[in-house]
Amino acid sequence: MLNDIHFVLSHTTHPGNIGAAARALKTMGLQHLKLVNPKDFPSAEATRRASRADDILANAQVCNTIEEAVTEAKLIVGTSARSRTLPWPMLEPRELAEKIANDPAQRPVAILFGTENSGLTNEELQMCHYHVCIPTNPEYSSLNVASAIQLITYELRLAALAQDQEIVVAPPIEDEGELPARSEDIEQMFDHWQQVMEHSGFYNPLKPKKIQMRFRRIFNKAQLTDSEVRLLRGYLAAIRKYESQ
Amino acid sequence: MLNDIHFVLSHTTHPGNIGAAARALKTMGLQHLKLVNPKDFPSAEATRRASRADDILANAQVCNTIEEAVTEAKLIVGTSARSRTLPWPMLEPRELAEKIANDPAQRPVAILFGTENSGLTNEELQMCHYHVCIPTNPEYSSLNVASAIQLITYELRLAALAQDQEIVVAPPIEDEGELPARSEDIEQMFDHWQQVMEHSGFYNPLKPKKIQMRFRRIFNKAQLTDSEVRLLRGYLAAIRKYESQ
Repeated sequence: MLNDIHFVLSHTTHPGNIGAAARALKTMGLQHLKLVNPKDFPSAEATRRASRADDILANAQVCNTIEEAVTEAKLIVGTSARSRTLPWPMLEPRELAEKIANDPAQRPVAILFGTENSGLTNEELQMCHYHVCIPTNPEYSSLNVASAIQLITYELRLAALAQDQEIVVAPPIEDEGELPARSEDIEQMFDHWQQVMEHSGFYNPLKPKKIQMRFRRIFNKAQLTDSEVRLLRGYLAAIRKYESQ
Repeated sequence: MLNDIHFVLSHTTHPGNIGAAARALKTMGLQHLKLVNPKDFPSAEATRRASRADDILANAQVCNTIEEAVTEAKLIVGTSARSRTLPWPMLEPRELAEKIANDPAQRPVAILFGTENSGLTNEELQMCHYHVCIPTNPEYSSLNVASAIQLITYELRLAALAQDQEIVVAPPIEDEGELPARSEDIEQMFDHWQQVMEHSGFYNPLKPKKIQMRFRRIFNKAQLTDSEVRLLRGYLAAIRKYESQ
């Protein structure tokens, strides 16, 4: 699925944003970047901000028109911060990701991003099947273009992983000490704990149950592992030994 | 909810990332930024990248230590890309946002971000109740720190919006002792714990860090309340007193 999604940046002004976009794509396992008339590309600043995602930049397709960039797309989506005069079918990023995951027939998909200052033109927005709007703070919705790409690629990756998960089996825990402890072992540790408690005189004979219960709750909340039970017992044994000297 | 979450950037190298972090926070309706020993701040580059979110920068609290930055936090969360030798309770950003939304008693929350090159130190990671890991591409997980902040703030905003729609009122906690303990009190208890440990001879001088780390994990998993911290301190004091006789 992730291989079937193209990110199209139209008339980007700052090369740093192109580099950051490449990095955002790659962190989420995507790779296809198309640049429509970028102001400054290729650029050292783009490469610097791409931080080892420069293969995405090297393979980026530079286009003269937005039509050229979306020729093969079956679903075209435009990002839009503003509500426009003409209402358009709207999706949030999560809904968009689910739609793409659930409908392979609509791929390849093109997701369009406009200039830093004014976003997509009305003409570009009207080429789209859907507009995707990120639910930002209404008092400050100034999301950087690479940040918007990061959020959308993240939702796409989660949707792709959710789809794969039906097949994926959880990896085994390699260190057996990290498995949850058996309740019998926890009880023995807890008996030991109480012995040290009584021995040290901390045990309050008036309310013994309540104190026991509170310690028990601490250890229950911690969901102790095998190795942790052994560690606590070692500690208790050391204290007992010291006390007997 | 969003007002009760503090983003803590530890030893950030590039001022541009601090500016981009401020912008990311503000787009999602958050505002609290703390900077632990930033390399270069205040900085024109930070202000430029903040793009009108400079009020966040102006109000950012600069701290000398990570402890100072998290003193008031009841839930401390560290961002971590790597899987560590000692497994720690892990959350994905969406799970973290739901947890914060559903449990007002755990606020204020501090979310920690490490340096650009190496992330949080092991010591910083061990202060945390949870580690949050963004599910990036395993072959290229090089997420920019401001991008990581953008993703986490986005999930927090979505969780806050979802909650507003439900108008759920959380039941008040009647017993104040049952509120989560302050991190400062937990640290003091933990210092006390280590004194008893050293005193009893349990302290293994060859691997002291590892044992400390394991105990710390137990108590972090337990998410101690005020009354539990007092109970543990009472217990430790009784043992010390007994040992001194």
